[in-house]
Formats: sequence, structure tokens, C-alpha cells
Amino acid sequence: MKKYVYDFNEGNKDMRNILGGKGANLAEMTNIGLPVPSGFTISTEACLEYLKNKTEIPDNITNEIFNHIKILEEKTGKLFGNKDNPLLVSVRSGAPISMPGMMDSILNIGLNDEIAESFSKQTNNPHFVYDSYRRLIQMFSDVVKGVPKSNFECLFEQIKKTRGKEEFEFTEEELKGIIKLYKDEYFESTKEQFPENPYTQLIETVEAVFLSWNNDRAITYRKLNDISNDLGTAVNVQTMVYGNLGENSGTGVAFTRNPATGENKLFGEYLINAQGEDVVAGIRTPESIDTLKEVMPDCYKEFESICKILENHYKDMQDMEFTIQNGKLYMLQTRNAKRTGSSAIKVALDMINEGLITKEEAILRVEPNLLEQLLHPTFDQDELNNQVPVAKGLPASPGCATGKLFFNVKDLKEAKDKGEKDLILIRIETSPEDIDGMQIANGILTIRGGMTSHAAVVARGMGTCCVSGCSDIVVDEANKVIKVNDLEVHEGEYISLDGNTGNVYIGKIDTKEPEISGDFKTFMDLADTYRKLRVRANADNPKDANTARKFGSEGIGLCRTEHMFFNPERIFEFRKMIVADTEEQRQNALNNILPYQRSDFEALFESQEGDPVIIRYLDPPLHEFLPKKEEEIKELATSLNMSYESLKERIDDLKEFNPMMGHRGCRLDITYPEIAVMQTKAVIEAAINVTKKGLKVKPEIMIPLIVDEKELKFIKDIITNTADKIIKENNIELEYMVGTMIEVPRATLIADKLAKHAQFFSFGTNDLTQLTYGFSRDDASKFLKDYYDKNIFESDPFAKIDREGVGRLVYMAIRKAKQIRNNIELGICGEHGGEPSSINFCQLIGLDYVSCSPYRVPIARLAAAQAAIKAKKNK
Amino acid sequence: MKKYVYDFNEGNKDMRNILGGKGANLAEMTNIGLPVPSGFTISTEACLEYLKNKTEIPDNITNEIFNHIKILEEKTGKLFGNKDNPLLVSVRSGAPISMPGMMDSILNIGLNDEIAESFSKQTNNPHFVYDSYRRLIQMFSDVVKGVPKSNFECLFEQIKKTRGKEEFEFTEEELKGIIKLYKDEYFESTKEQFPENPYTQLIETVEAVFLSWNNDRAITYRKLNDISNDLGTAVNVQTMVYGNLGENSGTGVAFTRNPATGENKLFGEYLINAQGEDVVAGIRTPESIDTLKEVMPDCYKEFESICKILENHYKDMQDMEFTIQNGKLYMLQTRNAKRTGSSAIKVALDMINEGLITKEEAILRVEPNLLEQLLHPTFDQDELNNQVPVAKGLPASPGCATGKLFFNVKDLKEAKDKGEKDLILIRIETSPEDIDGMQIANGILTIRGGMTSHAAVVARGMGTCCVSGCSDIVVDEANKVIKVNDLEVHEGEYISLDGNTGNVYIGKIDTKEPEISGDFKTFMDLADTYRKLRVRANADNPKDANTARKFGSEGIGLCRTEHMFFNPERIFEFRKMIVADTEEQRQNALNNILPYQRSDFEALFESQEGDPVIIRYLDPPLHEFLPKKEEEIKELATSLNMSYESLKERIDDLKEFNPMMGHRGCRLDITYPEIAVMQTKAVIEAAINVTKKGLKVKPEIMIPLIVDEKELKFIKDIITNTADKIIKENNIELEYMVGTMIEVPRATLIADKLAKHAQFFSFGTNDLTQLTYGFSRDDASKFLKDYYDKNIFESDPFAKIDREGVGRLVYMAIRKAKQIRNNIELGICGEHGGEPSSINFCQLIGLDYVSCSPYRVPIARLAAAQAAIKAKKNK
Repeated sequence: MKKYVYDFNEGNKDMRNILGGKGANLAEMTNIGLPVPSGFTISTEACLEYLKNKTEIPDNITNEIFNHIKILEEKTGKLFGNKDNPLLVSVRSGAPISMPGMMDSILNIGLNDEIAESFSKQTNNPHFVYDSYRRLIQMFSDVVKGVPKSNFECLFEQIKKTRGKEEFEFTEEELKGIIKLYKDEYFESTKEQFPENPYTQLIETVEAVFLSWNNDRAITYRKLNDISNDLGTAVNVQTMVYGNLGENSGTGVAFTRNPATGENKLFGEYLINAQGEDVVAGIRTPESIDTLKEVMPDCYKEFESICKILENHYKDMQDMEFTIQNGKLYMLQTRNAKRTGSSAIKVALDMINEGLITKEEAILRVEPNLLEQLLHPTFDQDELNNQVPVAKGLPASPGCATGKLFFNVKDLKEAKDKGEKDLILIRIETSPEDIDGMQIANGILTIRGGMTSHAAVVARGMGTCCVSGCSDIVVDEANKVIKVNDLEVHEGEYISLDGNTGNVYIGKIDTKEPEISGDFKTFMDLADTYRKLRVRANADNPKDANTARKFGSEGIGLCRTEHMFFNPERIFEFRKMIVADTEEQRQNALNNILPYQRSDFEALFESQEGDPVIIRYLDPPLHEFLPKKEEEIKELATSLNMSYESLKERIDDLKEFNPMMGHRGCRLDITYPEIAVMQTKAVIEAAINVTKKGLKVKPEIMIPLIVDEKELKFIKDIITNTADKIIKENNIELEYMVGTMIEVPRATLIADKLAKHAQFFSFGTNDLTQLTYGFSRDDASKFLKDYYDKNIFESDPFAKIDREGVGRLVYMAIRKAKQIRNNIELGICGEHGGEPSSINFCQLIGLDYVSCSPYRVPIARLAAAQAAIKAKKNK
Repeated sequence: MKKYVYDFNEGNKDMRNILGGKGANLAEMTNIGLPVPSGFTISTEACLEYLKNKTEIPDNITNEIFNHIKILEEKTGKLFGNKDNPLLVSVRSGAPISMPGMMDSILNIGLNDEIAESFSKQTNNPHFVYDSYRRLIQMFSDVVKGVPKSNFECLFEQIKKTRGKEEFEFTEEELKGIIKLYKDEYFESTKEQFPENPYTQLIETVEAVFLSWNNDRAITYRKLNDISNDLGTAVNVQTMVYGNLGENSGTGVAFTRNPATGENKLFGEYLINAQGEDVVAGIRTPESIDTLKEVMPDCYKEFESICKILENHYKDMQDMEFTIQNGKLYMLQTRNAKRTGSSAIKVALDMINEGLITKEEAILRVEPNLLEQLLHPTFDQDELNNQVPVAKGLPASPGCATGKLFFNVKDLKEAKDKGEKDLILIRIETSPEDIDGMQIANGILTIRGGMTSHAAVVARGMGTCCVSGCSDIVVDEANKVIKVNDLEVHEGEYISLDGNTGNVYIGKIDTKEPEISGDFKTFMDLADTYRKLRVRANADNPKDANTARKFGSEGIGLCRTEHMFFNPERIFEFRKMIVADTEEQRQNALNNILPYQRSDFEALFESQEGDPVIIRYLDPPLHEFLPKKEEEIKELATSLNMSYESLKERIDDLKEFNPMMGHRGCRLDITYPEIAVMQTKAVIEAAINVTKKGLKVKPEIMIPLIVDEKELKFIKDIITNTADKIIKENNIELEYMVGTMIEVPRATLIADKLAKHAQFFSFGTNDLTQLTYGFSRDDASKFLKDYYDKNIFESDPFAKIDREGVGRLVYMAIRKAKQIRNNIELGICGEHGGEPSSINFCQLIGLDYVSCSPYRVPIARLAAAQAAIKAKKNK
């Protein structure tokens, strides 16, 4: 028969899938001889079994639980439900992966009126017993029955007020009276009697823990953190030890090192004469763990040595709970400690030096995304503590920002011109025309759009804080005011955004600039010694390129040339090109654009000191460059010397039903080869100019949206003919490559044919994901929510590469391409290029490099190092 | 050394790739001993060689041509360029696949002033010689130099007028004078002298033929007919024979049978004393070939026997050119005759009976698309001859239509209500709201959209004539008038559309209803005996379903349930469903829709007599069902008892950037499972009701747009839970299947996982093509034009399946699916399901059936029969 319940001495730390994290570690501590109160763990499999039935815990599991209660009785010499020698237990949830939102613990299970009375006499400590009993009723009501804790807290406050007494002053009878009132409250709220039967208490509690696996908070947390819904939670049942037996007892939490800074020094706090929940609840102010050294020197010494044992055993910083009962120390929990980015780095480096872990283990120890914290402004923690968020959107681009609110780029720029420094831009959704404003804003807030909306992508690229899709907020653009709940924020008033959490605050919260400490550099340098994948950056201008380089990028993997056009002077010429009636007019406009592009490319090449620069040719549909509002069209018509009607007609003509799949990318070059000619001139002339300065240049020209061999050849011929002619005229040595973006499913299927003409492939997994799923990135956030809620998707395919579908296409393309051109350069430039698990996939399938936004470069470097170490291990 | 020139006796009919069709058949006729004037063929390879150089014909090829002239001189005993015994030749183009648009023939090459003078004396027939010479100059000018024929024709008319004489009355000197004037005209137009050197005449003519391979008409023709650009054309050089030597000479064209009806009787016409071009040019009215029996009984008898020989030899109806020179018959060309659909069928059946071909050959002999002619109204040919098209769009849906023009559905319906019968609907582009109007119009004309635009797809489905993307026409909707060139057509005025050619005519042209002859049925029944693929129809209502059944469909492969909602009463309830604020409101609206759907399904099931009916659940994005114009929104708001603002907000909320990739298909069922529940109730209750009537029913429920296994399972569970409950409640036996449409690339990649849950797959290759290419069907026509013009694409991937990309995905999916579920039912329901070469592909990859619009069912049946025969052959 299947086993569903494990005694602590039957498990170990590697059984977390079955015992949950807490249970596995309690077992491990038990086995290495640490003082852990006896207990057992009900497995995650029992949870899944229960959730499948949804009615009650199957008999065989109930029986196993009761058998283990018997074993506990034997070990402790106490009896569950026996008034003369009662066994009391705690029940705590413990999923395989630690997650908030799950059920809290319930202590003191096993008490009832009869047992309390008798127990109170035995211990001669009615205060302790009735305090414990009172807590049991309150916790049980809250956790199992959903009756708010505050109901009881209010009641207790009232009683104290009425009687004019503090808790410790109550007589035994008065304490019993309080229990009576608690039970009345319980009955009133639940329409049932508080269960006097300890077994009922136990089983109902276990069921509540099981059910809490599927509460909203837990589901949301799992979704956000990519945790499978199929794991289930375990339940730990443990003999009670009491920190509230008097001044010789206490309870606390501690870290073996400082989780914020990484300093190698015990860090934590405790309370004398208290149960665990008191430390967390914050009713009394706990003491620093340092003072325990004087208060209970023996306990402190023992605890210190247990910390060492645990760190040596787990080879990682631990986060522990402990209780002292009448001077004896008990360990209630240990786990690898959560930590900040700086702490993670310091701990990893220290542990190498301490000989605790190898360098490779140290690299694997730091979660790459933690580095994000080191690269963006953060809120001042003290100020943040005084604030409550008013709305929550998606954490679209990390960092924190505070500033005055503006509703459009024009107003924002005017404020900037008047000397305002801290500006926040709010838009329903951003469009390429907002780029100017996005560049000068401290933070960006949008009402619509997901993690890969225009605002999110651009903001991440810029390293600007962004909260997107914040649909709680109602925007009144006409009156320049936002409404959220009953609050209003007007133009020019302060608002603060947390791009790490998606929280939005009203008012100003000071921010701190990031400091890149020496440890950070040491750590990244170490990581680089393992890394196989090169890391390039997606950068469209010298500023971004330099930022990326500062963060350690090795060339540019994607320069989106269209981003160079969104400057007022340039866009005018570009628009002239779009509305041109004849090839000659178009050529004239292109001639005017050429010098801009050329000088941009020169600056870009110079910034990269000979590292490769991939330049993607014009990609978006032309209508993205034209205005939409009547007034703007009129303005443009006047400046273009056109009639409003004919400009409007041209704009309407360019409108598309599905622009993502429309006239864009290389399709523009097929229709207007002169655009490819101009861009080639700009690239090659810039490269020549920089070469003439004595600098090295490696231009790689990338043709976007290719679907067919002849299409690629047609455009490649234009490029090489143009380029070779210029190079010859200049009588100079210049090597350049021509390649293609692989971003349409068909391109992956004919990759062998494309490899005949392309010297490199860059996988554009953003568009490839859109087309492989048929998900419009701009529209999908609307319905993907339902996919998460209904457990259909566990992660966002735009954030984390879909290995089964998109990944398979990429892998097929690589195999086909290498058959034809073994040394073809292969990289990725979608958002996935900066996401650790996707980077691991890139290593597995044999890419040469990943390219990501500048602010993700360090993350990609670390993820790539980890991928290389893991790959070596698996060989 | 490579051989570029072949004497007629060196070739045969199987060498058409090298000799072209005409050359191969001249060689074949020569070899079987028919009277063919001697000559030789310059190969297609010579053409390609020349086009590669683009400057001149390489020396080795020129030498080979001149060598063959020598051989010709030996055979004929005449000398090229010799005034005493001149050899004259004709030059004719001949591509491997017969195609119009190529260069015409040039006759009488080898004449110049000197030779003409001498030849005229020898023959004592100056009229014949100078007539020939005049024709040479005119043809050479026209064909080689691009000087319009009309220049010379005008000149000739003037001379005749001035002199008051007809051609035959001119003296030799006067004839010479005309030649002088022709040469002056030649010089004036070309700024060079007419080449007196016969070798120059020959080589320049050959070059002109080569170049004509790439003229616009030829390129367009090849694109439209899927002929490769890489074939090149051959050139035939042949000794002249003269039909213009007097009353004992003549020239003609004839078919061995009637190309219009198939009647087994010589059909053709001839002219006495004329050269070939005169028959074609229509200056003189030719005689029926029947009269030749009396005029030249021996020649007729010989010709009749040659026809028999040729038919027996080629085993097909022939289309021939002949010339009679002084009573001797010469064959100048033979080829398999083009024919109408009826003729093709009759000839095929007759030839079986005559023992000329096998039944399988007969089936292969009829081009499936020819059947189209038998299924739609056609213009009265006599009336059509008096008409000139004013504009040309895409031949989006076959058939011809004439009627009064209306600009919107409202006006059209009012006209209908007033008793108007012949109505034509013109729209910039159609939307689902136009369905009502499209159903009652004789024909549909759109300004935008390609062969697979909404208008085209819907019209083909209905079998209604449609010309789409006719951008020559300017629509003024406000004033209800169209402008084309300088002409205007107002509302209510007649216009005529030819859906087979895309031609648009102003005015009324009477149409004829199609007749399905007995031969047609005999032929289709024969085809069915070979066919392996089943043929189902895409039909959304009983009318279409019955039409399809009449045409031989075996069940319904695609019922698009949303098409059932576009009826005014129904759409109201449907809109209520869309704008519902609560699940309850939505449920109420769905409850009101249920009876409509159920009764529609009942009618559909009854129409299919137990054949399977695939019902696809709601597919398009919801905003397609809501109005766009302010006025209509206001109207709807009133009738829904909503404020304009809140309706407008809901509509804006539903707007999508790329609706094709948005919230549609099964994604709607994920968000609103109650829709799937309602549709399942309608399907199953209808099936039960029909079963209770004692009829058989085979419902197959199809879930659209699946991308993920869990997604499919989620919806399948809803369907089976709902269905099984109803079936159980009714205590009835009812089998139904649940399957999915495979139309998103990702679905093909995880087809094995989907096959675990799906009992059938239907490949939706329209959407699959859109996503595999990243081509929006509604937008692509704009840029695909450039892809054809630049020789990047040779055919429309939406019309003919892309085997390399889309086809590969389909094939992968089939292999994966069969591994999991060997008996899975596999079909296709995209537009490709009715296209012969795609149907052949469907047979190759192992589908069970194809589904197409009702009017393509016979075509699909024939194409499937041909595919089966070809597959058997290739085994």
C-alpha cells in the first residue's frame, strides 16, 4: 500500500517533493541529531489525493495519520486527547517550493475545555494553558473557518478594557470566561460548535491546509513564480514546545548571515515568553538575537553551534525558527535563506573563501534575476514603510520611480523644459511616437498592455521603470486626472511606481541610485570564466550601447534602425519618404535620411571597439510612422505641402487589418528596394569612415521577416551589390556579413535554404512566438489571464521560451542550417535572450550568443555561466 | 559541345522542354511521315543562354543556326539570300507550355529588294512576291522593333484610297512604291534602315522571340497559370509554303473535334489565297472547313485522314494549322486542343468508347478547374462580343453576373423588397455584416482584398460571382457613384461582372444558367470509382448543404457556426451576449440563441442523411459582431437598453491590434465556457431530435485555434460533460466525435499530444498559411503583387498549398498524430481543399477527406480521382 505519512526520522532533505520543504528539512535536522520536537509529515501525495476527491480525506490516509499520532504518543509519553497527560501538536503547511499565501500554522491542537482544566492544574500555570487555548480557538477560526482574527482581537481588547486588567492579571475563572466568549463568537460566525474532539481539530486543520493549496493568493504566486500547480502541499504535525512558559522560555527567527548585506554574522530576533506567531505579528517588539548572548548564554551558544552545523550541512545560508522551552532549545524549521542580490553575491564569494562551496557552486547559487536589484533605483525602505499601494499593474520594467504625473509627451516635455526633473508619463498604451517622452520620464505607467507591450519592451530596453496594464486606474485624458478607488491624482501631482512589484503609490517616495559594489564585479568576472555563450545587447543608440558595454556586453545583437527615425527632424524626412508619389520623391527623402543613419551608425561602431554590431533593416509597417489624429494629420499635410485629403488617403491606404502580419520587414524592401540601398549605404559608409579613423568595425546586416529563399536572395543581392561597389570605390578592406532574422515559422522550416545565403541567423523569438501561437503580443494579455486562472498555461510564452513549440522550431532551424553552413553564426535577440531559463535552452541547442536589453546584460552573463556549468555537469 | 539547334527529324513529341511544344510536334509530325515543310528548332536552352548574356546570341549558337540553314538549303534545293532561287523561312516562337503573350510569327524572312525583284520575275507573280515582302516589313517592324502594325495598315489604306485601287489592281511598279513607303515608315519609326541582309533578318527575329519570353504579358500569363519562369522559349525556323499563291492555295486552322461541345466532327475554318495571319486577323471572313470538301476534295480527304492519324497518335483532340500551296497540303502545327468543360468531358467519354484511351486516361484528361464553367452562369457570348471591359479586378469567385449597382446592404435590400431581381453589391471591402446583402446579390464587386479576402471566400462559398480588389474603380459612397476612367455608374444603373476573368463591364449583359448534361454525371460517376479521398463541403446552412450534396459531397467538413448569427434577430441576441456585464446576463442571451442554433443544426443533420457533419465552434473575435459606425452604435445601444457611452466603451475594449491573432476561436471558450456549453447543447439536442425521427446523425464537434494540450482538454471536458449528460437524460444511443482544427503552427508541433484528446483533425490551412508565413490574408494582396512582379513567388500560397512550409507542418502533424491514434480522422477545410494540386498533396500525405465550398465539390471529386490514379501509377 502507498505510504502517505512519514515520521521525521523516515525522511531527508532530498524528499521535498513528497514532504515539502519544511518537512524534508525537519527530517534532515532530526537525522543529524539536532533538537527537533518529534513529529511527522503528511505527504504532498495525500494532498493531491484529497484535492482529487474534494470531499474528504480518504480513510486509509486518516488511519495512517492516527497511527502516527500513536507513534508520537509513544515517543513523548503523552496521550492525544487525554486530560491527564495531554499531547498537544502544531500543524504547519509545507509545499515543495516555499511560497507565501499558503495556510498559516495552527498551534496547540489537542486542547479542549476538559483537557485545559486538567492541564492547567497539572502545570499549575492556568495563564499559559488558557492563553494557549485562546490562541487555538482564534487560529482555528481564522485559518480553518475563515473567521477574521480581528473579531477575537477586538473582543479581547474589550474585555481587558471592561475589566481594567492586563492579560497576566486575569484569574483562572476570568480566563475560562474569555474562552466561553471566544466560543460564542465562534458559534455566531460559523453556526457550529467549536470542535472539542482533538481528532476532529486535527483532521479539519489538515484539510484546511490541503485546500489552501488552491486559494487565490497561492495560485497567483505560483503563476508569477512559474511553480507547477501539480505539486500539492505537505502538512507537518509536530509535538508542541512552548516559548510561553515564562521568562525562561522564548521563541525567535534567525539567519545564519545577513540576508540583506550578506555579512557573515548571525542575524535575527526573538521574544521571551511568547509563541511563534508573536514574533511575526509585531504586537511586541522583538529583541535582536545579539542580546540572547547575555540573556540565555547557554542557549545562544548552542544555537550558534547549530547554525554552523546547518550551514556546513546545507552549504548555504539558513533561515531558521527556534523555540526555547524552560531553557531548552528546540529547532522548528530551517531553510535556505532568501536574500537580496548583494547578499547573494557576498555569501557566495565568502563561502568560496571559507571553503564551503566550489566556485561553480557559488556561481549556481545566485539567482540571476536577483542582479536586477543591483541595476536600478530602489525606494528608500523607510519611506516605503509608510506607504500603501493604491493599485497594482504588471512589473513591466524594473526599478522604482517617483515624479510628477503627465498625460502626454507634449506636456511632459514642456515640464522638462521648465526645469522639472522628476516626471512620470501615464498613457492608456504607448506608441512609437511616445519614445521621446519615455526617454525623459523617470517611470512609465500604462493602463493596457502586458509584459511585452510596446511600453514594457521599450522601457526595459531603456532601463526605465515601467508598470503596465494597470487596469485599476481610470484615466481621464481630457481633464488630465486619474482615478483609482476614490482617489484622484491630477497632472503635476506626485505618483510613485515600483517596477519590481507593479505597485503604484500616490505621493512622493524618495529613490536611491544603485551602487555596483566591488563584490559584484568580482563575482561577474568569475562567472565569465565559465560562460560559453557570448552576450550582446539590443541597443539602438550610442547611449544604450555604452550602458550595455559598461554592463559587460560583447557587441550589439540588435540595432533596430527604425528607432533612429523617431526624432522630430528625422521623422519628417521619413514621412516624406512614406508619402512619396514617385520613386524620385522617395529617393530624395531617402537621400536626406542617409546622413542621419550614417552618423548614428558611426557612433555605434565606435562605441563597440571592434565587437560585432548587428543592424536590422527597417522593420515596422510604414503606417506606424504616420500620425493618426486629424489635427496632427493636418499639421503634417501643411509641412509636407500636401492636401489634407491626399495625406489622409495615403494614411488610410496604409492601414492594415493585422499590421503584425502586414507590409513590414523585408517586405518593404521588396516593394521599395531603394530603402535597402539607402540603409546599406549608411552602414557601409559609416563602417568605412570609422575604419579610416583606424578603428576596427564588424558590421552585420540583418534582413528581418524573411519567409522565402528567393526573397532573401533578392534583398541580399541589393545589399552586396551596393556595399561591394562602395567598398571598391573607397579602395579599402572591409568585412561585413549579411544574415537574416529567423522570426516567421516558415523561415525555420526552410532554414537550410536560407543558410545558403545568410552568414548568420538571429532568432527573433518575440515574433516567432506570436506566429507559432497565433498570439498577438499586443492583444494576448487580455485572454492569457484566463489561461493562467484556469491552469492552462503556467508561464508567459513571451517571457520564457516555449521549448515544446517555438523551441522545437528554433532547434529544427539550427540543425538544418548547420548542415549547409557549419560555421553559421547563431544568436537570439528576442526578449528571451535576457531570461535565465531561456538562456539555458540557448546553451543546450548550441547558439553562439544571446542578445538582450542593456540592463539585462549582467543577468544574461550569469545565466549563461550557470547554463555552461550545468551543461558540463550533464555531459 | 552542347547542341542548341535540332532539325525537325532530330526531335520528337517528348522533347517539349528543349524544343517547345510547337517544335516537338513539328518534329513528331515529320517523323510519322506527315507533309511538314522542312525546318529546324532553336532550343529553349539557347534562349536561356541568350537571356543570361542579354547582349547577343553566342557565336556557337549563331553558327549552329547558319549550319541548319545550309541543311535546309540542301533539302529544298533553294538558297537563303540568293536572288535566283531564294529560300524564304518563317520564324515562330514555341514555349514548352503553350502560352499567349509570346511573340507572333514572322513570315517570308529572306526577302529584300533585290530578291523580290528577281523572285517576282521567276514566279511571274509580282503580287504574291510584293504582298509577301510587304507583310515581312510590317511583321518585322511590329514584332522585332515594336512599331505598331496600324502605322502600316493606315498607310496602305491611304494609298489604296489615293489611287482608287484595290490591292490586286496595283502594278508591279506601284507595288514597289508601296515597299518604298513602308521602308520610309520603318526608318522614321526606328531611325535605322530595314535590314536587307536575310541573315540579319533571321538573327534579329530570333533574338526578338527570345526577349519576348520576358515581356509583361508573358510574365503575367505565367504567374496566373503557375508556369515557371525558368523554362525559356524555343524558336522554329521553317521553309515557307504559300497559301497566297492563287485560287489553288489557302490556309486554315482546324480542330479534330468541336472544342466547345466535344462533338466528334472536324471543326475549323480556312481562307483561299491567304497567308496564316489573315485567318487570325479577321480581315476577311473565313469559310467553314466543311466547304473545303467541295472546293478541294482531295486536300480535304487528305486532311481528314491526317486528323485521324494525329488523334490516334496523340490520343487526344488536336488543334492544327495547315496551308495548301498550289493544291498541295502542308501541316504547320498540331497540338492538344484547348477545350471547354463540356467538350473535355464529351471527348474523354467518346475516346473511351472509341477505344482510343483507357478510363484512367480519360479521367486524367479533364482539367478539374474546367468543371467550374459547368457550375455557374455565363455571359451570353453574342452579347459579350459587343462589350469592352472598363476595369479588371481579381477573378475571386467564378460565374458571371449582371445587375443594378448598390452601395450598401440596406439600399440593396430595399431594392429587393421593391421587386428588383438583378442586383450587384459594391463595397470597398465586405465584412460579416454584409452577408445578408451578399446572399441576395447576383454578384459582388470589391475595391480592396485578394483572392482570399472576406468577400472572395464568402462569395465562393455561396457560389456567387465576385470580382475583388478592383482598384481601378473609385468609389464615392456618399454620392453613390463609382468612377472608372472617365465613366460614372450611379446607384441603380446596370453593371456586369465576370468572375472567371475579373472583367467589369458597364451596362447589362444577359447571362445563361448552367446546364449539367448527362455526360457530366457519367464522367463524375466514373471518376468516383477511382477516388480514395472523400469530399465534404464547407456549408453553414441547409441551402449550401443541399447544393453541395447535389454536387456529390459526402458530408459537411466545415460548418462555421458564427455564420448562423448574421441574421438580424439572431445577431441582436448575440450582441446582448457580447456586451453582457455578468455571467447571468450572458447566460440569458445564450439561452435565447440556443433554439436558433439547435434548429439550424437539425436542418443540417437532416440534409446529410447520416453523413458526418463537422461543426466548428464560434471562431471570430467578438468585435466582428458589433457595429462600427456611431449611428449604428447608437441604434444598438437603444435596442440593448444601454447608454451609448457604455456600449462604445465595450466596443473599444474589444478592439484589437491584430484581430487574426487575438481573442478568438477556442480562446473565447476559455474565457466564456458557457458559449461552448450552449453550442454543445444545440448540437447534441439537435442530433437527438433528428435521431428520434429515425434518421441517422454523425455530429463531429470541432474546436478551433487550439495551441496547447491543456487548452484542448479543458474545452473537450466541457463538451463531453455537457453532451454525455444530455444523452444520458434522453436515454438514447448517440455517437459523436470531438476533434480540433489544426491551424496554428504550434498545434502541428504538438500534434501527438493533441491526438490524445482529439478524435479527428481538420487542417485549417487558411490560417495555418497566414501564421506560417506571417501574412495577413486581408493585407497581403498589397505586397504579394510585388512578389510576383519580382519573380519571388510563382503562386499564391493561399490558393495553392505551400508544400515546403505549410505542407511540411501538416505532414509532421499527421505523422505525430498517427503514432498516438492510428485511426484518427484527418481532413482539410481551408480553401486548398478545393484546389487540384493541393488535393493531390492531400492524397500524398494520407488525408481521409478534403472539404471545400459547394461549388467546388465536383472539381475536388475529379482532382481526388486524378490524385488516386497518379498515386497508383507512382507505386
